[in-house]
Amino acid sequence: MPQYKAPLRDIKFLMHDLLDAPAQLGNLPFYAQNETADADLMTQVLEEAARFVEGELVPLNAVGDQEGCTRHEDGSVTTPTGFKAAYKKYREAGWTALDADPAYGGQGMPHLVSNVLVEMMTSANVAWSMYPGLSHGAYSALHAVGSEALKNTYLPKIVSGEWTGTMCLTEPHAGTDLGIIRTKATDNGDGSYSITGTKIFISAGEHDLADNIVHLVLARLEGSPMGTKGISLFLVPKVLVNEDGSLGERNGVVCGSLEHKMGIHGNATAVLNFDGAKGYLVGEINKGMNHMFIMMNAARLGTGLQGLGLGEVAYQNALAYAKDRLQMRHEPRVDASQAADPIIVYPDVRRMLLTGKAYTEAGRALAMWLALSIDIEHHHPDEAKRKEAADLVALLTPIAKAFMTDNGFNVAVQSQQVFGGHGYIREWGMEQFVRDARIGQIYEGTNGIQALDLLGRKVLMDGGKKLQKLAGMLQEFVEENAEDENLAPYLDQLGKAANQLGTLTMVIGQKAMQGPEGADEVNAAAVDYLRYFGHVVYGYLWARMAKIAQEKIGAGQDKDGFYLAKVQTAKFYFTKLFPETKMLATTIKAGNEPLAVDDRAVFGLEQPLVGA
Amino acid sequence: MPQYKAPLRDIKFLMHDLLDAPAQLGNLPFYAQNETADADLMTQVLEEAARFVEGELVPLNAVGDQEGCTRHEDGSVTTPTGFKAAYKKYREAGWTALDADPAYGGQGMPHLVSNVLVEMMTSANVAWSMYPGLSHGAYSALHAVGSEALKNTYLPKIVSGEWTGTMCLTEPHAGTDLGIIRTKATDNGDGSYSITGTKIFISAGEHDLADNIVHLVLARLEGSPMGTKGISLFLVPKVLVNEDGSLGERNGVVCGSLEHKMGIHGNATAVLNFDGAKGYLVGEINKGMNHMFIMMNAARLGTGLQGLGLGEVAYQNALAYAKDRLQMRHEPRVDASQAADPIIVYPDVRRMLLTGKAYTEAGRALAMWLALSIDIEHHHPDEAKRKEAADLVALLTPIAKAFMTDNGFNVAVQSQQVFGGHGYIREWGMEQFVRDARIGQIYEGTNGIQALDLLGRKVLMDGGKKLQKLAGMLQEFVEENAEDENLAPYLDQLGKAANQLGTLTMVIGQKAMQGPEGADEVNAAAVDYLRYFGHVVYGYLWARMAKIAQEKIGAGQDKDGFYLAKVQTAKFYFTKLFPETKMLATTIKAGNEPLAVDDRAVFGLEQPLVGA
Repeated sequence: MPQYKAPLRDIKFLMHDLLDAPAQLGNLPFYAQNETADADLMTQVLEEAARFVEGELVPLNAVGDQEGCTRHEDGSVTTPTGFKAAYKKYREAGWTALDADPAYGGQGMPHLVSNVLVEMMTSANVAWSMYPGLSHGAYSALHAVGSEALKNTYLPKIVSGEWTGTMCLTEPHAGTDLGIIRTKATDNGDGSYSITGTKIFISAGEHDLADNIVHLVLARLEGSPMGTKGISLFLVPKVLVNEDGSLGERNGVVCGSLEHKMGIHGNATAVLNFDGAKGYLVGEINKGMNHMFIMMNAARLGTGLQGLGLGEVAYQNALAYAKDRLQMRHEPRVDASQAADPIIVYPDVRRMLLTGKAYTEAGRALAMWLALSIDIEHHHPDEAKRKEAADLVALLTPIAKAFMTDNGFNVAVQSQQVFGGHGYIREWGMEQFVRDARIGQIYEGTNGIQALDLLGRKVLMDGGKKLQKLAGMLQEFVEENAEDENLAPYLDQLGKAANQLGTLTMVIGQKAMQGPEGADEVNAAAVDYLRYFGHVVYGYLWARMAKIAQEKIGAGQDKDGFYLAKVQTAKFYFTKLFPETKMLATTIKAGNEPLAVDDRAVFGLEQPLVGA
Repeated sequence: MPQYKAPLRDIKFLMHDLLDAPAQLGNLPFYAQNETADADLMTQVLEEAARFVEGELVPLNAVGDQEGCTRHEDGSVTTPTGFKAAYKKYREAGWTALDADPAYGGQGMPHLVSNVLVEMMTSANVAWSMYPGLSHGAYSALHAVGSEALKNTYLPKIVSGEWTGTMCLTEPHAGTDLGIIRTKATDNGDGSYSITGTKIFISAGEHDLADNIVHLVLARLEGSPMGTKGISLFLVPKVLVNEDGSLGERNGVVCGSLEHKMGIHGNATAVLNFDGAKGYLVGEINKGMNHMFIMMNAARLGTGLQGLGLGEVAYQNALAYAKDRLQMRHEPRVDASQAADPIIVYPDVRRMLLTGKAYTEAGRALAMWLALSIDIEHHHPDEAKRKEAADLVALLTPIAKAFMTDNGFNVAVQSQQVFGGHGYIREWGMEQFVRDARIGQIYEGTNGIQALDLLGRKVLMDGGKKLQKLAGMLQEFVEENAEDENLAPYLDQLGKAANQLGTLTMVIGQKAMQGPEGADEVNAAAVDYLRYFGHVVYGYLWARMAKIAQEKIGAGQDKDGFYLAKVQTAKFYFTKLFPETKMLATTIKAGNEPLAVDDRAVFGLEQPLVGA
């Protein structure tokens, strides 16, 4: 059975040494008033979270995979053994309320802290973590744009964890393309709406953990325009709520079936049939897509955390196995009295392990930087600072989602490889990490869609302003440390790559303006561009971490070798992983032309669609 | 449900246009005498194979995955519904005998033909294909080194498919490191041996398809030296064979359990307990490893074919889905009367599809080239030609195994990505391809081991002679076609990369000679080196295919656009995939130093093992 220990040492390093988080959060009146950004308090909470996750969720991970969820004839769903009891403990310990608004019963802790909790939960049991995860998304949207009445009725129950939430977007014919959804809403004339349609792939869509489920549903109000501008967001409770807040009648939404999936078996992925279900408008009519994006952005960072968490736990187990497994004889021998040496001595095994360590620790740095930025975006008293943080979060969210889940999957696969044949066997647990990690690259907008969001919407749409801001921050760091000999080889690579990112952006931007084919050029470049950008961001973070670590070492503060490990992992990153940018620069420059192949000859289409 | 059509058009192109196979095989007396290399006959056989595979094996693929194999209390195993009936048809149609020696009832068809059959079977149903696949491996070893008595008793039954075979190598503590196996053989003094020990991960190790199973087992004869030089190969039948060839008593080998695996559920992966089982020596005492490698080399190419076959079928289904699925609106619109356009119009989707096509078609070219070379190695009248072919096969086999399975897995993952959320759902079948493809990177020697075999054994051990021979062939092609303007951009890249491969080899070779650390330098470079080498080989094949295709187009012989597709796919390969060599050259040059990190600081070991 796989093991997991929450990486608290690394989390504390990032929180204090890299981000100076207690000071930064202490400047925000919200946390100052609530006294929730105190360094000791945050540490205490995270240590407690680690205990909960290691003790309660880790043991349920394999169980959840093996049992999956069961749908009964009446549409009800039973979650795997132990899931319900663990959720009760989670809720009773107050974890559902961790970063929620005290006005609705929340504890008002920083997003930085809840973000770390999510990482730990995804390492321990990603399928389980999605039940509270989806609730949190529903909470965020409702809190941001719901009416006072809706908020007062639903938020306290969601915050306490008595009720959970979902996001109902996808339909059988409409995944990426929400503009073509068919679910309809009719105005009942009494402040409520009647919702009819079928939603698929609804994570945590039906289960036995809570008394009620609050579905947030995209639907088209009768008479609204076609496309994304005619979509509204509705709250549709599984069980209707009486005026006194008690539960009333069952609403007209039922789980028609559960999907059989590659992984995350412990989470119920429901087909939900809405048949004249009673719903309530959330926010404004026809602004549903905008409102949904409040959830989506949080969900995207949350999905990125899944990549991080699964990479971390896969790495931890590969490391343990590599120390344990004896195969072949290394020179010099580790222990000549043994028939063979631990495989961790072989460079190729070390390469796989260091790949896991380097991607995971950079991913954690990015995730915590983003989480802190979200806290600043929400709570800084200075509007300019809020805007600055919001821009950074907008720019980096697609990278956090796509780069972290791609790396997480690859790390899970490489960690599985360390196990040889045993990695393919279920009882070792490694293959579950691979299967569970695969979905992160697909849902909440495929990683291809993230790349389009980054390049098309976040970079090109404002003429590169957000990018330039970030690039300025990088260049400043490079220049400030130009005299540091230890950092020089990294900073040289980083500076060049940051410059080239600017050049590539300009080249694509110019192509993008050349008629309809411009959109194809953006589409052709996007995925490679996001990966290039991701390396620049990770490179920046590794260089910053290496700088701090070197200072600590220089000051004689590296008693346990933690900082030496940081320096050496940074070196590995820049010498063995960062060079992917060389390939990507070439493929980005190649553009759309090699993709504009003859549709009939190459793809067997009867008519050419594009290309000629 | 996924679909599959055998790619006969491409197979014929390779057989005739690229390899000129009927003429080459016709020069070999064995095939000339047997009249089995006739072009029409080979075509007819392959068309028949396609019908069998499409009709009988494709429908059982999902069934096999869902049902898996069942072990009963007595150690017997039931295969999934339909597997036994399909095997009976397969056997009765003579497919088990296809390339076997006519002296034992075989049809004496070229390896080139059986190789294509294997590719088709792995596309259709890789778990099922492993039952005859393992038999074929046992056949090869027994045919090559077995005594006349053993061959006369066992080969006709294996060739007819009445009995199947296995390879029993791995033990719980010994995977890569067969030198430390503990299974023992005791001489019974009557020409038989008594075998005792436990073997794990035995594919097709127990099942209900055949009356007997012929296990080829590695064991250490009492008194033999430790390590790989003390291992012998034994034939251990599941059921003992009477002198008249009829089946006698059950032998002392029993299936203790079946593994629960990530994929290939339809194949029984057995733990086999040998308890004083009666066995017979195959070949010479203490030469077991050498003899086993006869099987292993065939099995490695066979595993490479799994990567090819799974990539092909995943690609075919992704292509079909991409034509069908309508999402978002492209400019120009494909059909403005529809709400959305087929996703195949988007460059990023085309990129994923073309990746599948480019890797798959190059892989098929490599596999068929290798298969033809094996025919020449076995049957050419000129010893020098046999040696030349054997050297090429030895050099390229680890590339075929590792590069094809790595690419096959990546193509399966990318093809799954084309399906968005539906790719994660079992009923679409794409996630099965991913799970089934994963094992190819692990078994028959992990891909890391293949890389060491390539760099350490095949390239450096003979001072680069085999490599130079191949490089000479490439340079000759580059020079011969230097005037061809259409090929120029590819040949330029290919020539430079081939040169750089030579340089990288020399650099690693020099480091390799520097004391014990030299071995670490080889180990550190090997995986990246194999991938670099793989691209050079695929680049060579794509350039050759493009040249042929251009000539056909020039001669007005491209009625269906097949040759145009080859030219355009070659271009895609060189512009979007081949540039990976730029990254690899950098990471290879970085060497072992970034991996020689402090064991205590980075990996938490109590004592430093390597590095400091």
